[in-house]
Amino acid sequence: MNTVRDIAHFDQPLALDSGAELARVDVAYETYGELNAAADNAVLVLHGLTGTQHAMGLSSDTGRPGWWDSAIGPGKAIDTERYYVVSPNTLGSYGGSTSAASADPKTNRPYGSQFPIVTIGDSVESQARLTDALGISRYHAILGGCFGGFQAMEWMARHPDRVGSSVVISATPRTSAHNTALWSVLRAAIRSDPNWNGGDYYGSASPDAGLGLAAMFGALFWMSREVFESKFGLRRIDSDEPEYGFEPEYAVEEFLEGVSRNAAGRIDANALLYLTRAIDYFDMSRGHTDLAAAFNRYTAPSLLISYTGDWRYPAEDMEEIADALRENGTACRHDTLNSPAGHGGFLYDTERLSPLLAAFLNDPENVAQAS
Amino acid sequence: MNTVRDIAHFDQPLALDSGAELARVDVAYETYGELNAAADNAVLVLHGLTGTQHAMGLSSDTGRPGWWDSAIGPGKAIDTERYYVVSPNTLGSYGGSTSAASADPKTNRPYGSQFPIVTIGDSVESQARLTDALGISRYHAILGGCFGGFQAMEWMARHPDRVGSSVVISATPRTSAHNTALWSVLRAAIRSDPNWNGGDYYGSASPDAGLGLAAMFGALFWMSREVFESKFGLRRIDSDEPEYGFEPEYAVEEFLEGVSRNAAGRIDANALLYLTRAIDYFDMSRGHTDLAAAFNRYTAPSLLISYTGDWRYPAEDMEEIADALRENGTACRHDTLNSPAGHGGFLYDTERLSPLLAAFLNDPENVAQAS
Repeated sequence: MNTVRDIAHFDQPLALDSGAELARVDVAYETYGELNAAADNAVLVLHGLTGTQHAMGLSSDTGRPGWWDSAIGPGKAIDTERYYVVSPNTLGSYGGSTSAASADPKTNRPYGSQFPIVTIGDSVESQARLTDALGISRYHAILGGCFGGFQAMEWMARHPDRVGSSVVISATPRTSAHNTALWSVLRAAIRSDPNWNGGDYYGSASPDAGLGLAAMFGALFWMSREVFESKFGLRRIDSDEPEYGFEPEYAVEEFLEGVSRNAAGRIDANALLYLTRAIDYFDMSRGHTDLAAAFNRYTAPSLLISYTGDWRYPAEDMEEIADALRENGTACRHDTLNSPAGHGGFLYDTERLSPLLAAFLNDPENVAQAS
Repeated sequence: MNTVRDIAHFDQPLALDSGAELARVDVAYETYGELNAAADNAVLVLHGLTGTQHAMGLSSDTGRPGWWDSAIGPGKAIDTERYYVVSPNTLGSYGGSTSAASADPKTNRPYGSQFPIVTIGDSVESQARLTDALGISRYHAILGGCFGGFQAMEWMARHPDRVGSSVVISATPRTSAHNTALWSVLRAAIRSDPNWNGGDYYGSASPDAGLGLAAMFGALFWMSREVFESKFGLRRIDSDEPEYGFEPEYAVEEFLEGVSRNAAGRIDANALLYLTRAIDYFDMSRGHTDLAAAFNRYTAPSLLISYTGDWRYPAEDMEEIADALRENGTACRHDTLNSPAGHGGFLYDTERLSPLLAAFLNDPENVAQAS
């Protein structure tokens, strides 16, 4: 199976939703498999907040598996022997696409604090350019969970003619006060680090402590109470009795220290600021009379997946999307799966998801209403 | 109605669970109402993590109402015309009881990083001294929610002969990995502030930024998703359209900035470290064969209250306490109330709670199993 890791460069300015523009745009991406002669077997996978274009296989840099390695590959749900999988890195992220860490053409120095806000719709426009460059006029399917699901919906609304079918997982039609609160605190954690320096830290020490704090904080939201209990419970590191001090003494404390350490060097702090702000601005209904109107040019089939344990984007949010799509008369199936991983179910618990994905990808027209 | 605000000083050393001791102990407290001649109308109320002894009325210092002003007072559920209400400040807290901010008798300078870990049981021992000093041999009732509920349970286990009846609200028989994770991150936020200085900041600048971050972080846990949505939704501060920047733009962002600001000067950062560590060590079963054994000297009636929206200490946790008490043959009623405030229901939503409290206080023997 052929894997390509590359960065596509586009010299035409990209007009942003904010009114600002990016003079140049880079889109880092990976592809898995081969585009067929008819160019009709391409599948777009869109990563989550802390993902990158590295979706399958082991990274040549880090040795880590891709974020959806359980679902993409030869013979897997998204079968690379059958499909040409395109996995772009979102604008503002830290995988090599244009971001605050990129050189500002005006100064030839990293943008840092001068990087403009890029919306999820802006990212989709950059991906449309990549799609052109790869010679794909229409995707067989686009798929994304959470932040990737937001991107998928922007594709459905902005480029409905280029989407043959869609899978939206663990998402919501618009952000919420609770989410914005979550992101605000995460951003405050990053900004609390003196090394953050207003966003202009490239070339000097990175705000690793602030990033580590944000990552620990995030872990409490990505993981459900039940997962904390089953993974760690009240297990101690190396003592049977309380040690009556502040040093890590419980396995869960050791885990969180690891979360903090691992974020450093892997995630660019500014990327988290920009991507979470993009989520704050995410609202599929904005500029439309209602949600159905946002999708009214979209005619292809959709599969929506929610998780019972997902309190961030509960099944009701997904059902609102399903209702909007059905109101437009398009075929839409919404399944709610049960997973102890909750919101992270699509990443960590793909056993039940994979057959649904495979069945849908192999015949999206065969969308039946979930019973 | 008579209100007393005072600090009781005890010169006898207090042996702590850790094996360390406090050479002297102060217990700050407030009392409301009058102890009757038989000294049998005293009710002990025990505050939560960020509460103090200021439980009712307006503070003479801050003008703020007490944390349970909705439930305590003349004619209220805990009727100060009938009961003598004793409200002590927990050891390690910031209301004037002995804490990291107190003078270490060895140095006459604030303990700071030298303050020992004090457990919830240790706090109860300090309260037992206060109880002696006030001339109370046995409380008519003890009441506490969350951290106050933990204290109430330690009273039931350690001094069963001094407890005439108990109300335990929104609590759990032992902490959990998820809670320890929550407290770990909150502590990391405080420690991230250079002003924290290892805990030795008394007399110099306080770690207000770290404390503010911890408070914002806490707000996300104290308040349910539903409360965030109903209070703020996606309301903007003063714009109709996105401003595409990082300045606060949503009402929820403004709220969190207020949470951060308000924590500074009101809460001592070290107190949060010590009190949350006390919760990490909280386990009513420790040293016993099971939970029932911990309560096996307790014979008085109990009322347990949980809230449907409380994912921190769900009704199942409370039912485990109820089961243990019933196993010992004591009268125990467990009611689960519904409140949009979730875990904070007992503080912010006392309309349904108050009649239950009043009925129980006025006749604890009349405890029926909740239907």
